[in-house]
Amino acid sequence: MSRVFNFSAGPAALPTDVLEQAQAEMLDWNGSGMSVMEMSHRGKDYMSIAAKAEADLRQLMSIPDNYKVLFLQGGASSQFAMVPINLLKARDGQKRKSADYLLTGQWSKKAVAEAKRYCEVNLVADTSDSNFTTVPDEAELTFNPDAAYVHYTPNETIVGVEFPYIPDTGDVPLVADMSSTILSRHIDVSKFGVIYAGAQKNIGPAGLTIVIVREDLIGHADPAMPAMFDYKIHADNDSMYNTPPTYSWYLAGLVFARGLKLGGMSAVEEVNKRKAEKLYKAIDDSSFYSNPVDVKCRSWMNVPFILANSDLDSAFIEQAAANGLMTLKGHRSVGGMRASIYNAMPEEGVDALIAFMQDFERTNA
Amino acid sequence: MSRVFNFSAGPAALPTDVLEQAQAEMLDWNGSGMSVMEMSHRGKDYMSIAAKAEADLRQLMSIPDNYKVLFLQGGASSQFAMVPINLLKARDGQKRKSADYLLTGQWSKKAVAEAKRYCEVNLVADTSDSNFTTVPDEAELTFNPDAAYVHYTPNETIVGVEFPYIPDTGDVPLVADMSSTILSRHIDVSKFGVIYAGAQKNIGPAGLTIVIVREDLIGHADPAMPAMFDYKIHADNDSMYNTPPTYSWYLAGLVFARGLKLGGMSAVEEVNKRKAEKLYKAIDDSSFYSNPVDVKCRSWMNVPFILANSDLDSAFIEQAAANGLMTLKGHRSVGGMRASIYNAMPEEGVDALIAFMQDFERTNA
Repeated sequence: MSRVFNFSAGPAALPTDVLEQAQAEMLDWNGSGMSVMEMSHRGKDYMSIAAKAEADLRQLMSIPDNYKVLFLQGGASSQFAMVPINLLKARDGQKRKSADYLLTGQWSKKAVAEAKRYCEVNLVADTSDSNFTTVPDEAELTFNPDAAYVHYTPNETIVGVEFPYIPDTGDVPLVADMSSTILSRHIDVSKFGVIYAGAQKNIGPAGLTIVIVREDLIGHADPAMPAMFDYKIHADNDSMYNTPPTYSWYLAGLVFARGLKLGGMSAVEEVNKRKAEKLYKAIDDSSFYSNPVDVKCRSWMNVPFILANSDLDSAFIEQAAANGLMTLKGHRSVGGMRASIYNAMPEEGVDALIAFMQDFERTNA
Repeated sequence: MSRVFNFSAGPAALPTDVLEQAQAEMLDWNGSGMSVMEMSHRGKDYMSIAAKAEADLRQLMSIPDNYKVLFLQGGASSQFAMVPINLLKARDGQKRKSADYLLTGQWSKKAVAEAKRYCEVNLVADTSDSNFTTVPDEAELTFNPDAAYVHYTPNETIVGVEFPYIPDTGDVPLVADMSSTILSRHIDVSKFGVIYAGAQKNIGPAGLTIVIVREDLIGHADPAMPAMFDYKIHADNDSMYNTPPTYSWYLAGLVFARGLKLGGMSAVEEVNKRKAEKLYKAIDDSSFYSNPVDVKCRSWMNVPFILANSDLDSAFIEQAAANGLMTLKGHRSVGGMRASIYNAMPEEGVDALIAFMQDFERTNA
């Protein structure tokens, strides 16, 4: 058995040691004689697994006490709806007509489209003219003080663009789709009203969604909408209103515990910064590869790069795969390559990619 | 390592051979160098896993070609909403005011409560006076010909009551929450408009929901509701509108393949019938144990039993656990014990339970 370096944008690589622990415990968790996925979610064993995962995430992210952490299903796509359903009346009990959105890529575009089912969307920024290769300067942003909330996507996985700042929205709750940002570095949770994230990048397997929501924003959902889309119902039931995705929650817990063992977010952040910097440097030092993104807002997590001669794309992908460097093909809307280097990508994986890129360039330039 | 017999109502036991295969493949599926949970859902490997799972389920259940099979998230609790959201206009494009529901237990009660957010609910049957220990006779049922659909719960897990017939609703689409019925026996899918099931009983891990829906009922969702609750969006995207719960889908596929290898639904049905009959016989033959459910509609999957002297409940549970018979405590609303004996419970597990019950009776009667 030989593990490859998997640069998938999501579902993405998981830490090998986490998978090894899951493998060892697959048929018998801690002497219980059963797999975690066979346990009643109401039983003592599973409740301890679930509670520890939440406690570890709270410690890892320094989540303040006035925030609930929900372990839900449905991905960011469900949150695109849950946010307006829960937040339009959350500021003062009056239903507001509009919300502010920053449109900076394909994911925020989807969030905007879904929000339009429930309210008017005010685009505070729209970087589509740049093919989403930049983000607005902070000074350019003017928020609507009456908006129910401001929504943005700190990291867009497809083009690999990332906000270098957290927008200051004053009294208006700030909502962030952190699917590809969460756990990549220290984040000041207190600046946000809602943070949500699909698990399948830095947390665990697809099918789990983490929602971190400030308590005053809970309890205002539209009762004409599905109960499953009401934050209060999930918060009041400790995310067990219905059967949660128990096995994914357990795996996320292993990832959180590992994060603490590695030294917490500052240690993780340091490695991620180094990985990204060395990969961008290799691209910038070459005329054979290029990255289309504005230097000020290049993503640490998703690094697209284009070959000067796109006829070589398939040879690059084929030879990379032969060297154990997998899932490098870029998104069809961008072309070229994309290396997603989430937390589980070891620094040696980035080093191996850079070495291969240089080798491929020498042979083909 | 010693595996126990786990009688959990759900999440429930999975076949040991399925878990062993998942364990063996955890770090490297089929020479790919990655775990299934690390694979892009758009990649060739994962697409083949997903397609095979669907094909095997179609074969196992003899699903007609005019039905879509969806692999979703959110459990039956989400379907309680998705059904009215999608079906109120499905019969002829006109939005109907009401739907018929058969209220026969806690799960249908939840389905009714959720449906009331979207339409009038007409209770065609209500067995709450019996504490949900029976189901209506088929001859007593009168359906509203204008109803958008008829909804029922063929098996109620809490009291262990099960319909011995499929209601004949004529032209009105029949919808069934088969979370604890699916794959327990042969089912004539063509009699249903929609069948849905949370995976965590007979299919796989919690966090996956199977929906089998007749094609003419797709495409009528209320556009004011979340896109994630529109059957058409999922059907048009082969259940990959958003990232699906990939690992649970893979495990479900292993369970489906195993079902075919065991000889299909008739073989599975034969074992399930025998397991249930011998457990009910042991209960009926004793004055120490009793089952409260009307004999004509006892569940094959969930077998509650009450000890004549409830002071012995905790001793029973403790000694059963010491004998490797786990998760036997009854639901708090019924008390006593409940043995859930889904497909993954081997006949030896039922034999071991019966032997223990007889032993316990001899010691304590």
